[in-house]
This record gives sequence, C-alpha cells and structure tokens, in this order.
Amino acid sequence: MLNEKNVGLGKVRSSIRELFEYGKKRKAEIGEDKVFDFSIGNPSVPAPSRVADAIREIVDTTDPVLLHGYTSAQGDYSVRKTLADYINNRFATTLTADCLYLTCGAAASLTITLNALLNEGDEVITFAPYFPEYKVFTEHARGKLIALDCEDGTFQIDFKKLESALSPKTKAVLINSPNNPSGVVYGKRTIEKLADMLSAYSEKTGTPIYLISDEPYRELVYDDALEVPYIMNYYKRSLVCYSYSKSLSLPGERIGYIAVNNNMEEFADVYAGVCGAGRALGFVCAPNLFQQLIKKLYNVTSDISVYKRNRDRFYSALTEYGYKVVKPDGAFYMFVKSPEEDARAFAERAKKYELLIVAGDDFGCNGYVRISYCVAPEMLERALPAFKALAESYKI
Amino acid sequence: MLNEKNVGLGKVRSSIRELFEYGKKRKAEIGEDKVFDFSIGNPSVPAPSRVADAIREIVDTTDPVLLHGYTSAQGDYSVRKTLADYINNRFATTLTADCLYLTCGAAASLTITLNALLNEGDEVITFAPYFPEYKVFTEHARGKLIALDCEDGTFQIDFKKLESALSPKTKAVLINSPNNPSGVVYGKRTIEKLADMLSAYSEKTGTPIYLISDEPYRELVYDDALEVPYIMNYYKRSLVCYSYSKSLSLPGERIGYIAVNNNMEEFADVYAGVCGAGRALGFVCAPNLFQQLIKKLYNVTSDISVYKRNRDRFYSALTEYGYKVVKPDGAFYMFVKSPEEDARAFAERAKKYELLIVAGDDFGCNGYVRISYCVAPEMLERALPAFKALAESYKI
Repeated sequence: MLNEKNVGLGKVRSSIRELFEYGKKRKAEIGEDKVFDFSIGNPSVPAPSRVADAIREIVDTTDPVLLHGYTSAQGDYSVRKTLADYINNRFATTLTADCLYLTCGAAASLTITLNALLNEGDEVITFAPYFPEYKVFTEHARGKLIALDCEDGTFQIDFKKLESALSPKTKAVLINSPNNPSGVVYGKRTIEKLADMLSAYSEKTGTPIYLISDEPYRELVYDDALEVPYIMNYYKRSLVCYSYSKSLSLPGERIGYIAVNNNMEEFADVYAGVCGAGRALGFVCAPNLFQQLIKKLYNVTSDISVYKRNRDRFYSALTEYGYKVVKPDGAFYMFVKSPEEDARAFAERAKKYELLIVAGDDFGCNGYVRISYCVAPEMLERALPAFKALAESYKI
Repeated sequence: MLNEKNVGLGKVRSSIRELFEYGKKRKAEIGEDKVFDFSIGNPSVPAPSRVADAIREIVDTTDPVLLHGYTSAQGDYSVRKTLADYINNRFATTLTADCLYLTCGAAASLTITLNALLNEGDEVITFAPYFPEYKVFTEHARGKLIALDCEDGTFQIDFKKLESALSPKTKAVLINSPNNPSGVVYGKRTIEKLADMLSAYSEKTGTPIYLISDEPYRELVYDDALEVPYIMNYYKRSLVCYSYSKSLSLPGERIGYIAVNNNMEEFADVYAGVCGAGRALGFVCAPNLFQQLIKKLYNVTSDISVYKRNRDRFYSALTEYGYKVVKPDGAFYMFVKSPEEDARAFAERAKKYELLIVAGDDFGCNGYVRISYCVAPEMLERALPAFKALAESYKI
C-alpha cells in the first residue's frame, strides 16, 4: 500500500551501509580501536587544510544573502564557467558553462542522468563488479540494469559479452574507472574499443546509446604514467558524472557535477533532460557554499599518497598471507578472492576478527570481497594480524 | 527517446525560475537597482551572524574527516536527537531521533516523502493556490496531483470540495501553512476539521490517508497570537516536511528534514519507505557541515521583523493604489488580484515597469499574481512608484 519497493530498500539498506552501521555500534561496544572497519569508502585522509581556509575566507568575504541564497538550478554560472575552462584545458574539450550541471555528489549525478535518459524498460549495461546502487538508481528510473561479467582475473571489459548484450533496448552503458570495487582502470585502448563498438552498433541499428562515466575516483590513480582517458574525446554521446567526495575528502558535503558532451547533435535535449530530472527529483541546486569552495579548489586534491602507501603495504601483506588479489591501479579498494566459495560466509567469519569487509556478491561478483583501504595507515597496520589470523583459519 | 517528461521540464523551467533568470539578465543589462525582482522566495534578510560564527567554530574545532565525512543516510544521530528533543519540547510530541530523516531541503523532503508513499496512479490532494512543483514532484513519483480550489477570497480549505474529492485512490493530502503563495495560515479549527474528515473517511473505507505538512514557512508568522498547529497533535498518519531555507535564510545550502509521526501503527514501514526513497533518489545524506550547523542553531531564526515591516508597508501601499490583496498572516508572499482577467498578461505588463511578479496561474489559481516581498526594504520602497504607475495604467 506504501511504495513497497522503497520500503524494501529502506529496510534492507545497502549491505555496505549495513556494515557501516554495525561497525559504529560495535565500536561503541568494544572500543573505537578494536574494530577494523574496511566497509565504506569514507576517505580517511582529511580534506586538505585549504578546504577549511577556503570556507573561512568565503564566509568572511561573501555577502551571506548571496552565499547562502539559491543559485540557478544548474549551479552558479561562475562556478560552472571555472570548471568548464578547467576541463577544457585538461582534456582538450570545448565545453561551455552550460554543458555543466552541479549536483549533490556522484549519486545525484547518476540518478539525474538516468532519469534524463531512460524510459520505462530501457536497459543500462554495466560491468560486474559494479557499485550496487547502480541497480537501485536504474530501477528508480524505471530501467533495467544489465551487469556483464568482466574478463576473469583482470576485471577488464569482456567485449564479446558486451557485443551480444547490445540490443535496441540498450539506452546507456555505465562505466566506472577507476573502478569501485576492483580498483581497475580502463586504458585508452579499452575506451577506444568500447566507443567503436557502441558507435558501430548505433549506426547499424539507429539506436542511440549513451556512455555514462561515473568518475568519483578519477584523481585516485597510483601510477603517474597511467592516464584515465576522458570519454568525451572518444565518444560523442557521453556524460561524465563527477564528484569531489573522494578527491577532496568531502563525501558528506555532497558536491559534484554532470558534464554533458556538447559534440552530440541532441545536446540541448540531453542537457534539458538533466535539468528537468534534477528538478523532478527535488535537488533545486547543489549546496551553494560548496559550489563556491569548488570554484576555488577545482584543481586541488587531498594527499592521496597515503592511499598509495596503503595499497602497496596492504597488497604485499595480503599476498604474503596467501590471499589472491588483483593489484588495484586506482580508487581505494582491493578486491580479494574469498578463500571459500561463499564470500558472504567469508565476510561473516571476518567479523569474528573484528574485520568489516563487504562480500562481492553485492557488487554482482560472487567469490570476492571488497576491502576499502581508505583508512588510517595505523589502523591498517593494526588490522594486519587479524587478516593473517583469518587466512590461517582457512589454512590458505 | 530521451525521457520526454524530464526533457520538457528542463526546457520549460518553472515560470518562477524563468522569471528569476530573466531578472538576472535584465539586471546585467540595465543595472541591478533598476529591476524590481519579486519573483522568487530567496530571503533578502541575511542569515544571522551566528551562522557565520557557527560555521567558523565548526570548521575550527571538528576533525575534517568527521566533519566532511558521510553521516548515516538518515543524518547524524546527535543532530536528529537534538531536533527530536526540540520538537518534543515545543509541540509536546514524543519523537525519537529515529523519527527524523535529514534532507537536502524542503523539495527533497517532499520528493522523498512522496516516493515513500505513492504507487502508480495514487492521488495526492492539495489546495490551490499551491507551490507549482508539487505537481512535478507528485508526477515523478507516478502519482496524480488533485488541486482543489480554496474558499473564495479567504484561501482557506473548502471542506465540501475536499469531501467530494476523497476517494479510495487518495493516498495523501498535502498542506502548506503558512502558504506559498497566499500567505494564509490554517488555524487550529481548520486542522481539526481536516483531521476529522480524513480520519472519518479512512475509518469508513479502510483507506489510509497520509497528511503531509510542507512547513518551510512555519517560523514566518507575523502575529504573536497566531499559532500554527502541529499536525502530529491532530492526526496520526502525518509527516512534517521542514526546511531551514527561509527561517535561517539558507535556501542555497539545502538543509531540512522529514519528521514521521510515530503514533501510526505502520510507522516503521513509513520510515523505511522514507529511507528507501532517499536512497533511490540519490540523496545519500544531507550536507554534513549544515547538519552540524543546525544542531547548534535549531532554535534560531533570521530577523524576520523585516518581512513583517515589508508586509505592512506593501499591503497598505498596494491597497492604497487600488489593488485587491488578501492580507497575509505568514510566509513572505502577497497574492494580489490581477486588474485584468488574464494574470499572465498582467505579469507581462508589469515587466515593462521592471516589476517581476509571477502569474497565479502557475499556482493553480487564475486571476492573481504572487509577489514575493522577501526583498530589501529599500528595493520595495523604490518599487512602489512602479506598482502605482502599473495600477494607473489599468485605471483601477
């Protein structure tokens, strides 16, 4: 009688959130330092001090009526202009301020984009493992998420699977690189191949397919030589969903944007769809103070070297203990093969060692667990004996 | 092929937003002080200085990892507890922290509530004039908005109309008091009568009907003797959608809450529906810094005496010029009878006098215009001759 779908979503929570809440309770029971919480992508590296400085400066120097007032629904023009110029310089695009739509973070970027594009029954293809909320967001927009398994062992796109999955129902392909939860980055050749396949299919069948790139982890790449291709340079029907949650360690403040590629013929309609969806979903505008902050700090990141050190330390320790891990190139997740077939049972057993890790089942990929290593290095160090004991309990 | 509904919403914009954008352009053309913008409810009274002080204090004293990190999806527990205690003290309710769900402002409160309650084809009854986005929000949740005309001249609920509109399809009644755009407040007897009618209908037919109270203007009432009834004290199936946009002059920061009445049997399901809808719509959590701000300033308001003075000055001037106006008891809008039948034509003619006012048609009430008087008193003073000249052009 109520909306059972949303009641169900509210009761179940995402498993990640569930574990996050469990962790908070458990810490209250046995002490903050006794629980090793690797459940959620809540950056442990603080926002750089320039964030606090910028907030103080903005508050000290801006008329509060302007600072806290409504902006245009798309976001303050001067902020959008700054970001468009920055993106153009960095990726050789030709975006204008009116290609950008500021959002309350990556989740909002995705729900708005999906509600702009999808009609009932439209399919969105993504690649497993994938962020579980993709399914929730797609289904709210009345679409269907088709999750294709990746190439075994590498977690790269399996193009044969993609080719057979494309259909006249395909409205969009949703990629996430660097990937949550695998940490894998799609290189230039992968993106080229993807773009070619989508273009060819579109041309052959007259089905326009949109490429949505969910990029909260763009800045979190641990090899200077590794370039994360900018999809607009490869595919015209593309939208970038960006967020400052991870790059600036501001996940609770909800600030990000959608960039719509102005190279597609139907750009004006797609952008209007974004504006209309933002309106219908109730977003009004992105938080103004954080819009102004981004205008100042658009090219700043937190000290992500901590995550790189965590990755290196963690990867070598886990492999030493006998775990099988795909070495992540970016983001701050490690996707580890479960020592038993049932990764949920493995994650449950880990709890006995006060280790909070998420079963890969929730990411559409059985037999693995996700470990978020965006944690304090001291905590990681203290948790290693527990990971070792857990491995020994399996005699791996 | 795209989602035509959302593309349409993005192209048309709300008329209010359209006029707001026109105003910004026009100001750039002829000068900020030459355009009299009464289009949007963007408070002109600045946020109290305690807002800036609190932001500085929070930034200076809180670990940035906590301050800018994710909170629980419902919002930080300590914030919700503070608000629940405050509401209980003020309105003699018995809410717990887990009756509250913090949101990105009033629009989010409404979309989340509607998506929690509605199934396809469910009806939501509201009373015209009403905030135009109610229709957009209801339709996004796959419901149908039924707007009933109010009593002529008073803009109070016409209970005969309500009685005949109630049907097994009615899922919710949505009220807004103090009202945007009429400024009218529903008194105790009105709310009692409304509650009685809904209870009686529910009992007779077994149709549960939810009462949603959209309350961004609760604190903006200009007569100390006038009490805005708290619906939870009158009706068990009730939800309050609150926002700090107007009371603290923070409309661009997007912070508010939903309070779910814990007196209804199905409370747990309704609250779960709220959590699930928030998740599906992509809200994640309300902006953390502003959650913390609200924890400090939950009982503070901007200096709303300015609005009262504006109301008094404006009301006496407009009636003196010959306009017919319902004297508003709250909010910061004046609903003025159009001197010609077509209020859109009137609003268009007003533009020639650089007066930006919104035709009542957009609020489901033809023949009126809405004038937002949340403006600087000096601007209001400067605009009066234009209103006078406009009246004279009609020879009223």
